[in-house]
Amino acid sequence: MSSLDILFNPTSVVLVGAAHTEMKFGGVILKNLLRFRGKVFPVNPKYRELMGLPAYASLKEISGPVDLALVIRPASEVPEILRELNGKVKCAIVMSSGFAEVGQNKLQDEIKEIGREIGIRILGPNCMGVFNPHARLDTFFLPYERLKRPRKGNVAILSQSGAVLSCLMSVLREANIGASKAVGYGNAMDIDVSDLYDYLAHDTYTDVVVSYIESVGDGRKFIESAKRLSEQKSLIALKAGKGETGQAAAYSHTGRLAGRYEVFHAVLKQFGIREATDFDELMDAAKALSYQRPSKGRRVCIITNGGGSGVLAADECMRQELAVADLPEDKKERLGREFPNFFGINNPVDLTAQVTDKDYGITINALKDDYDGFLVIALPNVLGITERLGGIMKDLKESVKKPFVFHLAPSGISARLTALLEKARIPVYPSPERAVRGLRTLLDQQ
Amino acid sequence: MSSLDILFNPTSVVLVGAAHTEMKFGGVILKNLLRFRGKVFPVNPKYRELMGLPAYASLKEISGPVDLALVIRPASEVPEILRELNGKVKCAIVMSSGFAEVGQNKLQDEIKEIGREIGIRILGPNCMGVFNPHARLDTFFLPYERLKRPRKGNVAILSQSGAVLSCLMSVLREANIGASKAVGYGNAMDIDVSDLYDYLAHDTYTDVVVSYIESVGDGRKFIESAKRLSEQKSLIALKAGKGETGQAAAYSHTGRLAGRYEVFHAVLKQFGIREATDFDELMDAAKALSYQRPSKGRRVCIITNGGGSGVLAADECMRQELAVADLPEDKKERLGREFPNFFGINNPVDLTAQVTDKDYGITINALKDDYDGFLVIALPNVLGITERLGGIMKDLKESVKKPFVFHLAPSGISARLTALLEKARIPVYPSPERAVRGLRTLLDQQ
Repeated sequence: MSSLDILFNPTSVVLVGAAHTEMKFGGVILKNLLRFRGKVFPVNPKYRELMGLPAYASLKEISGPVDLALVIRPASEVPEILRELNGKVKCAIVMSSGFAEVGQNKLQDEIKEIGREIGIRILGPNCMGVFNPHARLDTFFLPYERLKRPRKGNVAILSQSGAVLSCLMSVLREANIGASKAVGYGNAMDIDVSDLYDYLAHDTYTDVVVSYIESVGDGRKFIESAKRLSEQKSLIALKAGKGETGQAAAYSHTGRLAGRYEVFHAVLKQFGIREATDFDELMDAAKALSYQRPSKGRRVCIITNGGGSGVLAADECMRQELAVADLPEDKKERLGREFPNFFGINNPVDLTAQVTDKDYGITINALKDDYDGFLVIALPNVLGITERLGGIMKDLKESVKKPFVFHLAPSGISARLTALLEKARIPVYPSPERAVRGLRTLLDQQ
Repeated sequence: MSSLDILFNPTSVVLVGAAHTEMKFGGVILKNLLRFRGKVFPVNPKYRELMGLPAYASLKEISGPVDLALVIRPASEVPEILRELNGKVKCAIVMSSGFAEVGQNKLQDEIKEIGREIGIRILGPNCMGVFNPHARLDTFFLPYERLKRPRKGNVAILSQSGAVLSCLMSVLREANIGASKAVGYGNAMDIDVSDLYDYLAHDTYTDVVVSYIESVGDGRKFIESAKRLSEQKSLIALKAGKGETGQAAAYSHTGRLAGRYEVFHAVLKQFGIREATDFDELMDAAKALSYQRPSKGRRVCIITNGGGSGVLAADECMRQELAVADLPEDKKERLGREFPNFFGINNPVDLTAQVTDKDYGITINALKDDYDGFLVIALPNVLGITERLGGIMKDLKESVKKPFVFHLAPSGISARLTALLEKARIPVYPSPERAVRGLRTLLDQQ
């Protein structure tokens, strides 16, 4: 097993700085580790037992090797702790803050050097660590009552910032997107985003990688890993610290220079790596990529029961350089024969407030070979829209085999209909424009 | 009373096309009218009683005048119905579709002419009509089970599109924003957006006007009304039909040409009228303006307990041309003495995961005279953040007297904390960037 395998799938873990109460980070982490499938060794000289586990006064007391060490003690103690780990563990996560992010670069250099001497890879310092639902491993110092974790799924999240990581996790859960792994890598002193990309490129649980980046360190190494990863999986990056203010904020946050954003942006674009502008776009893209496979083409068909919502979607298509191309003449005639004369047989197709569920099926079946992707808008505040639409869409999605997204406005049945659609792996968005941006993510393979 | 007063505050209403079942629009409207405080006359020749009200076979059977007529019969019958209304009503809403939006321009011209002849103002055709919670008037053909209405409040919504109107209403409700009025004015054959602006400029219930526009008809009249309105209230417009595709879609939707967007945009900008880019931005701006008064200045202070979230906010400030200006030196020293050395005493102020509620109070009190607006980010997944923060913020907001917005990530206590903050009229947003855009709306009076 490589060091990164051990980081994600240890069979045993030692927690240096374990505490008896959740009022301390070391207590929160220990409580979360109670769910872990492997063995846990809490270290704290003041206790013989912690949360039902035998506690160890020091590392020396633990006989035999342990896969992974978690360190949550004050920064000044970390060098000594790492020396004691020599020969005992294969990998370590240093969660403690108080290093380069507060100007303590020498202390950070010292622990980097110790890591090299004792031959282990280190994640952090100043980080949240690792969440791997498949191994029930969770090193985050955030209690479950405060941060519900997402369900198991195919999206890996990487974040330099623990705060953004926690926000990504809660929004993932709210948006019904499952996670394969999550890593808060903090100051990235040793294990950096490139190492994590290389690992995830071959992780069978992961189809999509969401990457929040403040700085990349070695730019060439980053680009090579990002290229390799995006050949295997869907990678979407959000670069923070874009302007001078943001860069300064990023520096004081993780002690690394953010670098010129323009260069980063140009390089990502050159290699066809997806980039989100902001947090919401990152999550909307992750949802689309988690549910469906990206494909080629720019021709989009919008089918709506609300004229204005269709116009807003068409406007966003224009901004996203998607073509809302006219319906072929023969299809116009065919749909014109099927539908009442007040339906709008154009693109967007306007099924009006007098729509019934089956009209969506008729439309999409008629047009499925004429477009590269479909946006379906159903405003379920009219009685013609029912939960049957979920089943109709599921069948259609299987026969259409093209990117296919949904916008539902909040209403009496929208929660149940959303659940049905998302079970059929059709992503549902809360506004027409966000739905278009989701669809664009699936159509950017040129 | 003017015709528009009668539109919003009739004492009696006749519904031509009332139905016995909610499976018909005329039945949904009648059911919603049961809540109305005034008198309701349902007209339908087939029934003697409808939903517990005496029904009338024709308009002739109703003795004496009625304030407002609602018409929901097929388009071809509308001219005759209007003629029968002669001398009987002061104002009418024609909800029926089948006019200019489907190429029946002659029919629309005919009913326009009849309205002029019989001396009444007409809203519509092809429209949703009026919602006025203060009069318990609701002419929308959407059942309550399908579209929950927003609570009473200070935001008026105007929309050409019934679909967008219904989406705005449900999002208003979800975002805890109250409505003063809502109007779906459809084809705007007679009463148009300018008339509605003129009315709302003097409506005491309304502080904010949210205006979804596909076309404006008489451009000069529109601009003059918009200018007058925005001198009295906060006006925010979303123009749909921006590109060629969107314009074509808008035309087939309401039968009016959308006009060149560039001209519209330039004129709005010239007169300092706020414009939203998309649906979400419109709602985020409405929330900010509904809760707080706009003011001058561009200097923003960001206070966060999550470094990365602060960086994302700083990036968005740059895009929105807000200045994340450095802390004054004396304040840096003062806060440096109060706080532990690992807190980031810059802008953004980073209170880290080790924050407690009171640290926000200390920070804002120290800096309240140094900035034009404040963005507070509290990621409530750490135990130091409790519901007490709601009370602290309420007191601070009163003493700061400047634009003041919040970003909370979803977590165990975020729903309760959001309720407390919004009761104190501090708008809460689900991402750092959306919070910045909300704050920008409050700081664009230059």
